[in-house]
Amino acid sequence: MKFDLSGEDRKRMDEHLEKIMERTYHMIGYPLSRDFDYSEMNPVMRYALNNIGDPRIESTSVLSTKQEENEVVDFFARLFRAPENNYWGYVTNGGTEGNLYALYLARELYPEAMVYYSEATHYSVQKNLHLLRMDSIVIRTQPNGEMDYDDLREVLSQQRHRPAVVFSNIGTTMTEAKDNVATIKQVLKEQAIRQHYIHSDAALAGIYTALLEPHHPFDFADGADSIAISGHKFIGSPIPCGLVVVKKNYKDRIGQLVPYIGTLDTTITGSRNGHTPWFMWYAIKKWGIEGFKYRAEQSLELAKYTKEKLVEMGWKAWANPNAITVVIAKPHESLIAKWQLATEGDIAHIICMPGVTKDQIDAFLKDMKQHYGNRVSAISMS
Amino acid sequence: MKFDLSGEDRKRMDEHLEKIMERTYHMIGYPLSRDFDYSEMNPVMRYALNNIGDPRIESTSVLSTKQEENEVVDFFARLFRAPENNYWGYVTNGGTEGNLYALYLARELYPEAMVYYSEATHYSVQKNLHLLRMDSIVIRTQPNGEMDYDDLREVLSQQRHRPAVVFSNIGTTMTEAKDNVATIKQVLKEQAIRQHYIHSDAALAGIYTALLEPHHPFDFADGADSIAISGHKFIGSPIPCGLVVVKKNYKDRIGQLVPYIGTLDTTITGSRNGHTPWFMWYAIKKWGIEGFKYRAEQSLELAKYTKEKLVEMGWKAWANPNAITVVIAKPHESLIAKWQLATEGDIAHIICMPGVTKDQIDAFLKDMKQHYGNRVSAISMS
Repeated sequence: MKFDLSGEDRKRMDEHLEKIMERTYHMIGYPLSRDFDYSEMNPVMRYALNNIGDPRIESTSVLSTKQEENEVVDFFARLFRAPENNYWGYVTNGGTEGNLYALYLARELYPEAMVYYSEATHYSVQKNLHLLRMDSIVIRTQPNGEMDYDDLREVLSQQRHRPAVVFSNIGTTMTEAKDNVATIKQVLKEQAIRQHYIHSDAALAGIYTALLEPHHPFDFADGADSIAISGHKFIGSPIPCGLVVVKKNYKDRIGQLVPYIGTLDTTITGSRNGHTPWFMWYAIKKWGIEGFKYRAEQSLELAKYTKEKLVEMGWKAWANPNAITVVIAKPHESLIAKWQLATEGDIAHIICMPGVTKDQIDAFLKDMKQHYGNRVSAISMS
Repeated sequence: MKFDLSGEDRKRMDEHLEKIMERTYHMIGYPLSRDFDYSEMNPVMRYALNNIGDPRIESTSVLSTKQEENEVVDFFARLFRAPENNYWGYVTNGGTEGNLYALYLARELYPEAMVYYSEATHYSVQKNLHLLRMDSIVIRTQPNGEMDYDDLREVLSQQRHRPAVVFSNIGTTMTEAKDNVATIKQVLKEQAIRQHYIHSDAALAGIYTALLEPHHPFDFADGADSIAISGHKFIGSPIPCGLVVVKKNYKDRIGQLVPYIGTLDTTITGSRNGHTPWFMWYAIKKWGIEGFKYRAEQSLELAKYTKEKLVEMGWKAWANPNAITVVIAKPHESLIAKWQLATEGDIAHIICMPGVTKDQIDAFLKDMKQHYGNRVSAISMS
């Protein structure tokens, strides 16, 4: 018997692909790198891979990429200055899973902990905490989106009887603000809260924050107990993915022997993607530290250009230090839709991800001028 | 500047792919279909897709396959006889996420519920319940791997003060036993436990169980409140994926307005794979109901053949009704390793997934004969 798609189905696929190509060009508001190309790996898409369970333990089925996954973990553990013989990690389905895993670990260490996170934190964290049945308090932010450490101090001073889990943002969703882990650590010390855990959600900015000067405190050496990053953001991947690195002795607490797959499963999902670790491996082999640094510098340069051009034309625009996100006054709906700008309240942002070109930015600026003409200054400055 | 992989890196990739090809041929013990081919979709692998949030609500970024995802949800909701105007679902990262989502939903409905699941349940369920901080009791199984309903009755009779969540297996991991949802419903009624929730974990067997005669009670019309299936098992996918379908009015309870992505996010992960829903869409368009039924019948026939040949040579082998899993006495380690058979205690199994051929089974049988010779009967029957 012969089964196949109809001509109509194929036509729909082609049309959808065309739309994706157009929309990808016009996307400057979401943190997805565009300069990846894993087409060399297309033959692998014919095979079902599955990195089930702990990547450090080979499962009975060897249709996995655990070897590559471990190299990716090692690469980033080193970059994030994890303790040499006490780290563990795995490739997740994205930043959210990495954060969920870290909070889960923190809960296992301190079941009665209170979690603290700033107002600028991604909405998924609240969702995760609800899932985990953990208590939490939201901390105020400074105008740039960074945690207000005075407010943290104030709140902690009233909760000194409970272990503290501080969820820090290394690049908030809207303004790419970075919380300072060294300062957080200091505030915890002031309140003499010894039972504490600090997680760095470095989804977008973790990699280049580790590479740029001056050093921003966010990694293991600065006081973090775990770090999560996204793979589809700065690194670039067609499929959402990410990485979580934790201190190994913490992880060992939630290990549990499972005979069926011949592995100690300490991950959250059971079957795990085997292709995305390979994409990430490909990326670290291709770019290496030098390549990642080069790409970050290109992005920073483009962000600087974007900001300057907008300010020149009288449009409100600013950026946090070493951030590739340009925060702007919210433009007209038509521009938001065309260029897929993320918005919140009266602001929007452009993210100069690797692969976003000066041509794209210039085309956006041209659209802005066309729409606002000489009225720009009047509108933005009001 | 030019960045690229080294020749050594490329060599490793080639060698790994070769090993994957060999190991895929020699895998008859894991539930992964081998007859998929999405290479037509390779051009899509150049683009980052993201089905962030609720599939029924288009997000501000349209680089998604939510349209296709919804068609997949509709297709399986109909197959599983979900209430026509009261279902909702999404494509997950695999069976585990679907089960986690269903248990999360059940907890939101009944925060004080006790969860019941049989001994034969996949280990990930216990992990999920721990994550969700839910109480549970393990129910005994019958010798074929099915839930022992007398034991369920006994246990429930002592817990009538608590809402009950019953986690039923539609195809257990080792013996592909199917719990009977109609019987479970009946037992709950006998104990007059009105606040109850039944989830069907139909990871492997859901699709063909819905298509084969006689009908096995497991779907919405039979009493289930939610059903989870895997996409990389019977359907076939290079990347783990799955689907969860729930009653919409339950799901609405955990919705929460999130302005940033312009969507009500009721899923567990934030960013979601946009490629796997498209693979699943491709599969339902290619196979349709008729194709899925045809593949199931081929698999059943091969399972029957496998079982008969093994019994003929004196090796202990059996299968549950309408199951494509042949349970066998555990053979020698070398055979387990070569053919990647999953084992538990003194049993192993072969799963005749679509794409497993008679040639492969014959090669396995030949290896068995070569290893055991005339000693087969003596060993297996002891």
